[in-house]
Amino acid sequence: MDSNPENETDAADGESIEPASQGPDFAKSSNGLLPAIAQDFRTGRVLMVAWMNEVAFAETLASGHAVYFSRSRGQLWRKGETSGHQQVVQEIRVDCDRDTILLLVEQQGAACHEGYESCFFRRVEPDRSLTVTEDRLVDPQTVYNQPKSE
Amino acid sequence: MDSNPENETDAADGESIEPASQGPDFAKSSNGLLPAIAQDFRTGRVLMVAWMNEVAFAETLASGHAVYFSRSRGQLWRKGETSGHQQVVQEIRVDCDRDTILLLVEQQGAACHEGYESCFFRRVEPDRSLTVTEDRLVDPQTVYNQPKSE
Repeated sequence: MDSNPENETDAADGESIEPASQGPDFAKSSNGLLPAIAQDFRTGRVLMVAWMNEVAFAETLASGHAVYFSRSRGQLWRKGETSGHQQVVQEIRVDCDRDTILLLVEQQGAACHEGYESCFFRRVEPDRSLTVTEDRLVDPQTVYNQPKSE
Repeated sequence: MDSNPENETDAADGESIEPASQGPDFAKSSNGLLPAIAQDFRTGRVLMVAWMNEVAFAETLASGHAVYFSRSRGQLWRKGETSGHQQVVQEIRVDCDRDTILLLVEQQGAACHEGYESCFFRRVEPDRSLTVTEDRLVDPQTVYNQPKSE
């Protein structure tokens, strides 16, 4: 809605929700990437945020496992391929603008490459210092520096 | 860690967590914006994702209310300023790369400008069609098209 000052949608044209919308709209991103949140489907804990392009989203839909696009490596990132810490997708949601993806997942092992259950293992204090609020689930050295068993 | 294939951090240099880190690192974003997730602190529901720059983050910290940066309007977006649907920040977290922000909030009214509790009110089906899974909390017309009472 044009009259809505809280509407972030650049393409607002009086029609608020597309009637025949089909999942996320990757054309809304200049680089074809949209943020994707992984949330534990049982506990509701936010585990991580990564990025998806059309190909990653399609493979996620087809495989039932979370597949992202790694910006640093410039390629698909099949979460857990190295660590074994896969995310089994239980449900996918999109936001009102269809430019953010929410995955409800069953996390196997630790979501965070630091070995924590969630990448959000630190609280920001009023002075901006960070407090680690939990213990690691796994030692990241043992996860990433050993040959994969499968 | 350089050896970690799941590490999205471009600046990885062998030190996995900065010892004197101070909140989110806006320098990691080419446009100075980082994604910020708002999550209901009671229910764990993911309400919305928006963007913050350094100024928005500083005002959020100082005011205790969520302040974002609107990409479409190119200015600070004090959530709820028009609608009254403010977000009272209970806790702030950052992820392992310090490039994503998680706000645990007490949402007043509806987070979504469409009148839903959460912007993620639609499920993506296997064929990519969308299913609305809930009712609106409020009529967006009544929220945005009337003079604000306060």
